[in-house]
Amino acid sequence: MYIGIDVGGTNLKAGLVDGNGKILRVQRVPLDFQGPESFAGMLADLTREILQNGESVEYVGIGLPGAVSGGDVLFTTNIPMENVPLEQLFRRHLDLPLLLGNDADCAAVAEFFCGAGKGTQDFGVVTLGTGIGVGLILDGKLRGGAVSSEAGHIVMRRGGELCNCGRYGCWERYASATGLIRLTKEVMDCRPESLLHRIAAQQGCVEGKTAFMAAEQGDEAALEVCREYVEDLADGAVSLINVVRPEVIAIGGGVAAAPEYLLLEPLREIVARESFSSHGGRATKILRAELGNDAGIIGAAFLGRVM
Amino acid sequence: MYIGIDVGGTNLKAGLVDGNGKILRVQRVPLDFQGPESFAGMLADLTREILQNGESVEYVGIGLPGAVSGGDVLFTTNIPMENVPLEQLFRRHLDLPLLLGNDADCAAVAEFFCGAGKGTQDFGVVTLGTGIGVGLILDGKLRGGAVSSEAGHIVMRRGGELCNCGRYGCWERYASATGLIRLTKEVMDCRPESLLHRIAAQQGCVEGKTAFMAAEQGDEAALEVCREYVEDLADGAVSLINVVRPEVIAIGGGVAAAPEYLLLEPLREIVARESFSSHGGRATKILRAELGNDAGIIGAAFLGRVM
Repeated sequence: MYIGIDVGGTNLKAGLVDGNGKILRVQRVPLDFQGPESFAGMLADLTREILQNGESVEYVGIGLPGAVSGGDVLFTTNIPMENVPLEQLFRRHLDLPLLLGNDADCAAVAEFFCGAGKGTQDFGVVTLGTGIGVGLILDGKLRGGAVSSEAGHIVMRRGGELCNCGRYGCWERYASATGLIRLTKEVMDCRPESLLHRIAAQQGCVEGKTAFMAAEQGDEAALEVCREYVEDLADGAVSLINVVRPEVIAIGGGVAAAPEYLLLEPLREIVARESFSSHGGRATKILRAELGNDAGIIGAAFLGRVM
Repeated sequence: MYIGIDVGGTNLKAGLVDGNGKILRVQRVPLDFQGPESFAGMLADLTREILQNGESVEYVGIGLPGAVSGGDVLFTTNIPMENVPLEQLFRRHLDLPLLLGNDADCAAVAEFFCGAGKGTQDFGVVTLGTGIGVGLILDGKLRGGAVSSEAGHIVMRRGGELCNCGRYGCWERYASATGLIRLTKEVMDCRPESLLHRIAAQQGCVEGKTAFMAAEQGDEAALEVCREYVEDLADGAVSLINVVRPEVIAIGGGVAAAPEYLLLEPLREIVARESFSSHGGRATKILRAELGNDAGIIGAAFLGRVM
């Protein structure tokens, strides 16, 4: 039995997970952040509630958007925590280890045991969201904590768009959902006739899926957006693959729900053609991530198995 | 006791190496390639000669420029071998395992045990030569063979210079010794007054060190070359560091002999400023590789210790 807690934008979700990654029970509380001490207390309360039937666990895993190192939170992007010794605070309430992971790493751990990475030893997840979160498991061990991969910050275009990290031209500026939305808007500006406008109006705004929806109906401008987006996605993916050469890279996040022939198929083609494996060595497979929203709980719960 | 064989451009060098990385004895033969079978026979002969005093070893390690996978050579860049089952051929002559590594990986192994990587668990060597060879040791194990890092093929400038790998704009097109020489020539073309011309004439040609020699004498054009070269080197280095976040990256190859204040110091500044560690997590140290020409033998000899 394992406990995983997923710290989302608005909720804390804690789950009791069995050895096969099945979520047996979930507790949800709204995320009402009143400082690190009370946050640690909330985590302990959630843990106690989850264990109400007397099950025992070796540790509690928690996944956060941000960066962690050992038992400390270096920073989070949704709540104001910086350099917080979270495990230490948690242990004031409960005598259990608290294992910390960032959300990209938790996604990788979940997929590694229960999804697209099953059966591999060298595996990565690329989550396309506000940014690009990358989690790597190499030789069966998570590159987590202080060495968590920040492959979203491979520079793709020197002197390009300013990134949140302070550099210019990072991969995530182009190939995240945010990048896709910006690209869609740029193309819309020059293509007033495009179906993109009608779909965006129906949705109320431009989203990551806007271009894919219009492209499915054959809209030329949208097809152009999809092609350019996939090229940007492939560019960083090939660099990442050339550095660590995993068996499988799984693509996750909302954008990954796009039709296969518009996203993953052209991505696979470019990767096969451009990655170094065309000259020999391991060829990396590109799959879709499988677990969706459950990945946060499962990945946090299984952190102790890959550390 | 270990045996390492370094396959260079013109010679085979075999060394008997003790557990501390001390080379006790070296045998050199000219590289006269007459096909894979006779090449395997030469390796066996060299091994027998090295073991003339009756020492025993568990395996023979060999480092080659090219790509390997398990006991097979996928291709080499200096001799015509493609998909050669070298270990199998070797075993027809000698009942010893033959461990294969590419030269960049052997450099990393050697530095890991006896040079700039001593005491680390996550380590990389970036060798600046004709191309950029990268060897990675993560969690104490070599990313070798079919998963050997090809970080020289991180794309740095999309649509840039055509690379030998078939892609455009790879890091090694800019930051290898070859890239430095091309850049030096480009700047020389626009700066007829520069000291670069006189130094190149003295050397007989433009070399990797030409720009550094002129820069040391305060030549403005040469200083410009050095600055731009270091920026290119840093660009790929930061991307590599952001992906795997090693403790130490050692810079090797002829170019690494450049004065510290012109190469490694500005490189360290850019890496400290631009890598993700400025926001938290492990900061990677940049050191100079220490072992020079001995790295090939020592790294090949120690391959079995990191596999």
